[in-house]
Amino acid sequence: MSLPEVSELQVRVNYSETDQMGVVYHARYLVWLDIARTEHLRLSGASYRDLESQGLRLVVSDVSLRYRQPARFDDIIRVRCWVREVATRRVTFGYAVEHAGDGRLLATASTGLVSLDADMRLTSLPDRVRAVLRVVPDPVRLGLTEAPGT
Amino acid sequence: MSLPEVSELQVRVNYSETDQMGVVYHARYLVWLDIARTEHLRLSGASYRDLESQGLRLVVSDVSLRYRQPARFDDIIRVRCWVREVATRRVTFGYAVEHAGDGRLLATASTGLVSLDADMRLTSLPDRVRAVLRVVPDPVRLGLTEAPGT
Amino acid sequence: MSLPEVSELQVRVNYSETDQMGVVYHARYLVWLDIARTEHLRLSGASYRDLESQGLRLVVSDVSLRYRQPARFDDIIRVRCWVREVATRRVTFGYAVEHAGDGRLLATASTGLVSLDADMRLTSLPDRVRAVLRVVPDPVRLGLTEAPGT
Amino acid sequence: MSLPEVSELQVRVNYSETDQMGVVYHARYLVWLDIARTEHLRLSGASYRDLESQGLRLVVSDVSLRYRQPARFDDIIRVRCWVREVATRRVTFGYAVEHAGDGRLLATASTGLVSLDADMRLTSLPDRVRAVLRVVPDPVRLGLTEAPGT
Repeated sequence: MSLPEVSELQVRVNYSETDQMGVVYHARYLVWLDIARTEHLRLSGASYRDLESQGLRLVVSDVSLRYRQPARFDDIIRVRCWVREVATRRVTFGYAVEHAGDGRLLATASTGLVSLDADMRLTSLPDRVRAVLRVVPDPVRLGLTEAPGT
Repeated sequence: MSLPEVSELQVRVNYSETDQMGVVYHARYLVWLDIARTEHLRLSGASYRDLESQGLRLVVSDVSLRYRQPARFDDIIRVRCWVREVATRRVTFGYAVEHAGDGRLLATASTGLVSLDADMRLTSLPDRVRAVLRVVPDPVRLGLTEAPGT
Repeated sequence: MSLPEVSELQVRVNYSETDQMGVVYHARYLVWLDIARTEHLRLSGASYRDLESQGLRLVVSDVSLRYRQPARFDDIIRVRCWVREVATRRVTFGYAVEHAGDGRLLATASTGLVSLDADMRLTSLPDRVRAVLRVVPDPVRLGLTEAPGT
Repeated sequence: MSLPEVSELQVRVNYSETDQMGVVYHARYLVWLDIARTEHLRLSGASYRDLESQGLRLVVSDVSLRYRQPARFDDIIRVRCWVREVATRRVTFGYAVEHAGDGRLLATASTGLVSLDADMRLTSLPDRVRAVLRVVPDPVRLGLTEAPGT
């Protein structure tokens, strides 16, 4: 089976996601990243629903996100997602959020997740999960540490 | 008038903010930071509603957030907020999210905002806004660049 | 102890609650009703957190909501809440959402909740809960069945 | 061109939509109805984005919703949507929310929308919009006025 190195998810911006600036509210991107990560796991052969029912929790421990251009109502958005790093009890995902129509880069992000057991204590990532998490080099420069607009 | 160097906001966790892990969903913290920032501006003498009606927009350009301990339904949360840096067209806020009851640190964060005009083009921060933004050293170590749980 | 017949909650509209029409997105009112109901129970002597930790769930079974005037960013909103009806396994709450500044009525609503046990099966409302639920006549006409704007 | 009388939309439940009861938070259904209504208009030949850019706003004026069975994380949900009534300045949509896998009915709903101009004043529905709104009898009994669980 050929696992995806970089998965792609499409979402259409709905009205609830906009704010009075006429663009997508910034917190909403974190939900798109979550959906993309869940699909990435599914495509890799690890359903998060199954993992959770087996007592594993992958909990977001840190987020870095840079917004580059706004997304608007009814736009179709593509989120590319990949694994940046895997450690014993931690996995880092990278993301590029793009406008599906013209390919413009809207945001880049990285999120760290830690592996917890059903009692919310740190635990090692199960081997079957580590086995499907294929680390790839960032396909786009995330540029998360520079200050934009200065 | 004595401006606050570090403002404090309290919110009580409502049911909509929880997820099936029994804790506050991670994206929700960005909304708390937004509310805290808006209150910080108001206490400093700059109502964001007024700024926006005068054609200024402060738009989130980047977020760094580290989650340390979960928040739960009905908990009272305190968000401390301060200005970390001011540049010509950009301001950076720092945040400490704490449990109001026992003072535990739940999350730390930094967000950059850029100054846009009504047409969404970069513009200088107005002098009256710069005048009320008092930069202070971080009152807590944000620790946003270390990888937790590894 | 004097129980409130009609409780009052105030919330300030935050940016995440607005949409690109420049008003509060309609689904957000349901969250305000939830917060108001939780406060009503608390003021009546029944913490929902405690009820849930004892195995009870109050689950929304039906909603009727009529929007009358828009709420806007930074407005302070008052939600009045009361108990309309109590049956063996069901309680109905009424709500009036008002602008705190000028008292304008923004929305009226009614929500039914059913009593479920920890396995999500219908169960009788515990006596200690029924004891604190004081039914009062609607303090405002809810007008939920008329079609506005026709 | 054959217009749909009853449109169908599928969404997959994401983690942000769950609450600590382990089911989809009740306010979230209103967003699904909004997405379904927007798709229904698009399939009928009236893009809401276009209507809004031409100065028309369709604003939710009332909601009736009955929850029948819970939706859960990762479930695929189907929302069927149709037009129940059209008046000069108002249109009413009906909805059946179903589990896509086994067809179980999860919720039924009706929402009224009024037609506003760019200044948020009541205005007649444009002829080109009325022309695409085909009223059909409810394909399922909505049962919005009965009290469940009593």
